[in-house]
Amino acid sequence: MPASTDSPDNRPLERLKFLSPSEVRQVAETFGTPVFVYDEQRIRDGVALLQQLPSAFGHTIRYSLKASPSAAVIRVFDDLGVHFDASSVWEVVRAVRAGVAPEKVLLTAQEADFGSAELPELIRRGLQFDAGSLQQLTEYGESFPGTTVSVRINPGFGSGLVRRLTSGGPDSSFGIWHEQVAEVKAVAERHSLTVTRLHVHIGSGHHADVLLPAARRLLEIAQDFADVRAVDLGGGYRISVMADDPEYDHSEWAGELASDLRLFAEATGRALHMEMEPGTFLVANAGSIVAKVIDVVTTGDEGRRFVKINAGLTEILRPSYYGSPHPLVAVDRQGELPPEGPLSDVAGHCCIAGDVLTTRPGSVEELSPVRLGAVEPGDYLVVERSGGYCAGMAMKNFNSYPEAPEVLRRPDGSFTLIRTRQTVDQLTANEIVPHDLQKEPV
Amino acid sequence: MPASTDSPDNRPLERLKFLSPSEVRQVAETFGTPVFVYDEQRIRDGVALLQQLPSAFGHTIRYSLKASPSAAVIRVFDDLGVHFDASSVWEVVRAVRAGVAPEKVLLTAQEADFGSAELPELIRRGLQFDAGSLQQLTEYGESFPGTTVSVRINPGFGSGLVRRLTSGGPDSSFGIWHEQVAEVKAVAERHSLTVTRLHVHIGSGHHADVLLPAARRLLEIAQDFADVRAVDLGGGYRISVMADDPEYDHSEWAGELASDLRLFAEATGRALHMEMEPGTFLVANAGSIVAKVIDVVTTGDEGRRFVKINAGLTEILRPSYYGSPHPLVAVDRQGELPPEGPLSDVAGHCCIAGDVLTTRPGSVEELSPVRLGAVEPGDYLVVERSGGYCAGMAMKNFNSYPEAPEVLRRPDGSFTLIRTRQTVDQLTANEIVPHDLQKEPV
Repeated sequence: MPASTDSPDNRPLERLKFLSPSEVRQVAETFGTPVFVYDEQRIRDGVALLQQLPSAFGHTIRYSLKASPSAAVIRVFDDLGVHFDASSVWEVVRAVRAGVAPEKVLLTAQEADFGSAELPELIRRGLQFDAGSLQQLTEYGESFPGTTVSVRINPGFGSGLVRRLTSGGPDSSFGIWHEQVAEVKAVAERHSLTVTRLHVHIGSGHHADVLLPAARRLLEIAQDFADVRAVDLGGGYRISVMADDPEYDHSEWAGELASDLRLFAEATGRALHMEMEPGTFLVANAGSIVAKVIDVVTTGDEGRRFVKINAGLTEILRPSYYGSPHPLVAVDRQGELPPEGPLSDVAGHCCIAGDVLTTRPGSVEELSPVRLGAVEPGDYLVVERSGGYCAGMAMKNFNSYPEAPEVLRRPDGSFTLIRTRQTVDQLTANEIVPHDLQKEPV
Repeated sequence: MPASTDSPDNRPLERLKFLSPSEVRQVAETFGTPVFVYDEQRIRDGVALLQQLPSAFGHTIRYSLKASPSAAVIRVFDDLGVHFDASSVWEVVRAVRAGVAPEKVLLTAQEADFGSAELPELIRRGLQFDAGSLQQLTEYGESFPGTTVSVRINPGFGSGLVRRLTSGGPDSSFGIWHEQVAEVKAVAERHSLTVTRLHVHIGSGHHADVLLPAARRLLEIAQDFADVRAVDLGGGYRISVMADDPEYDHSEWAGELASDLRLFAEATGRALHMEMEPGTFLVANAGSIVAKVIDVVTTGDEGRRFVKINAGLTEILRPSYYGSPHPLVAVDRQGELPPEGPLSDVAGHCCIAGDVLTTRPGSVEELSPVRLGAVEPGDYLVVERSGGYCAGMAMKNFNSYPEAPEVLRRPDGSFTLIRTRQTVDQLTANEIVPHDLQKEPV
């Protein structure tokens, strides 16, 4: 067990983002653990912040549904007049069922099945389509000749926290390669399509100094497409997560882009609308996982101290998948912050060595213990930054753990269940055992 | 697009493992894509192979449920008299509901909630419990004093394909640290527990030359526990996956272990039973994902050729998570093997750059194109080695993709559905929208 309380990576002790320690206990006792808690006010504040960004001729915020696709979350955004970015036709279905008008949704997907029952019907009802490949543009044109369409461009470069979050450049399969603009024109003309929007998404956690060149590439291409009325910059805007992370000021690049759009307007007479597709920015820090400490083990004098919790890869994959750090905060069973304890690693409840939340940032194959309040089994551990790409992007049901519930903290401070805990019956509902293999339970 | 057909990693063209090309088409047309197909005969053959391993005083095969926990798969194993390794109480519930006798299941879990409704009841009905920590041993003893119990040991070292698959050694939170045997004795005595089994699981894809020292450590510890009747070596046995992988002969280490057990018996008069917990070994190569090719894109002269399929992280996480290679085999829409096409990368259907199946082995941040039959949209792509840790260990429902169905090829060659495709209704069944946020669909 490391004797020192100095984090080897010099990371400070983390704090709760929005829950109070007593609320952590309240949520755990009311809804059980593990449980996701989302803060509606933080979501609303995030939207307000983005609405205030400088823009030349107005801008539209599209919430990226894949970040957290529960109906109640969708309704909060729709209630604020936010539009939506969908990554699959199923996300569109969920949004529309939740009451979103189809025309407020832009679908940008790797898979777009024009032979399906759902996609053509939703497009007829107003869903906007963003062609991510020449193949998609062709199929769209064959099904909907004479209509308008978006085109996603791979600008030839990208930027993200890691390669697996970088969706521009030669290693990315997303969008139409920027040198294929002539083919875009040809396909559009063949099917009398009008390209009204150009779209780019270079990656998640990108550098603003790569976003601007990508936006400028769209403006170059827009010169050739006289009917383009909007440029969509995708998502991936950086946020401050850990206590020692810098703050990111998104008004800087937005201001520069606004200048570019004004210059474009002066040169062409066309005022382009700006769109953006934030997911993480709007929900990540507005969500927490409240888990229970179930065990504390050590692995010898030269070894580690592991705090085990009753959540893990089934709720949050990012530390193990990307080496993305999440703030970990201990709360004792009385709902109070305990004094600091020994440096600890935190392990999840899955039977796989990868279920550790304290990977070294950027290096999934190494562990890096963190400063943590003193806990023992029965206390709580809160995993912060869990509002985006956690409930929706985890090893759901691994080890047959049922999906955890979701709770929304309303602006009045009350907590309401927005998704119940999955049952084992639901987990096995679709299973069929061939007749000759059937056997009655003992 | 790479002009050469030489794989940069010199990997050969892969072949189908058990499906014929025409069966690929048949399965796709009958059940839709993507779909998991499991081969019952291969599963049965794998069990027979392990049953023939040399052993000193008999051995028990426990199928590791987390590898593939569908009821029909469980029934195939139960039908063969195989026992079971469960990693959570929920896996036990699924097995028992499928007709498995509780006493045939050994539970080895990070999370064991003796305050739950399920765990104590299942133990009363015969479930065997393997204590993975002193805390678990204590809680078990408090609930079931005077009974028998297993103990999982962390032998102080481990072995696996990567750290995230290595579950022994100081970086692993699994099991009781080997230097804490005195504490095990003390807790057992305090609660009149009889330790009848010692268990170790050092990792997945371990080297046999690390397994034997781990087994020997158990034998050393067994000297001190007079009632131990069995040693359980866990799982993680290597298999040949890619066309150029070596074959692994597991009778070698099993033979050596049998000698050790005979020596132990001569020295102590105690004949120890051997147990093993294979998952991957029994199901991985007995399962395939049949997907459809939905797009082919290129990223410039210096770039890549991506074949996109309608499966991805939602069905198979291993290439992106571990850098584990899976054989990828093209089948054309007529159900025939096409001639070889250009070197290609293969991307899945999720909107995240990490959804690529052609990561460089062992390096998730790099891509490495593979030799592949010539395909275009509408053809099929089969992802082999997908019978274990795929359907059960994926980013289920990411991008709101419904869970893919599972099909079993029976020994008579017929195909039968063992899990239906999930519906979007099921995906959203547990959602609740607060009254003031509700809105009727447009």
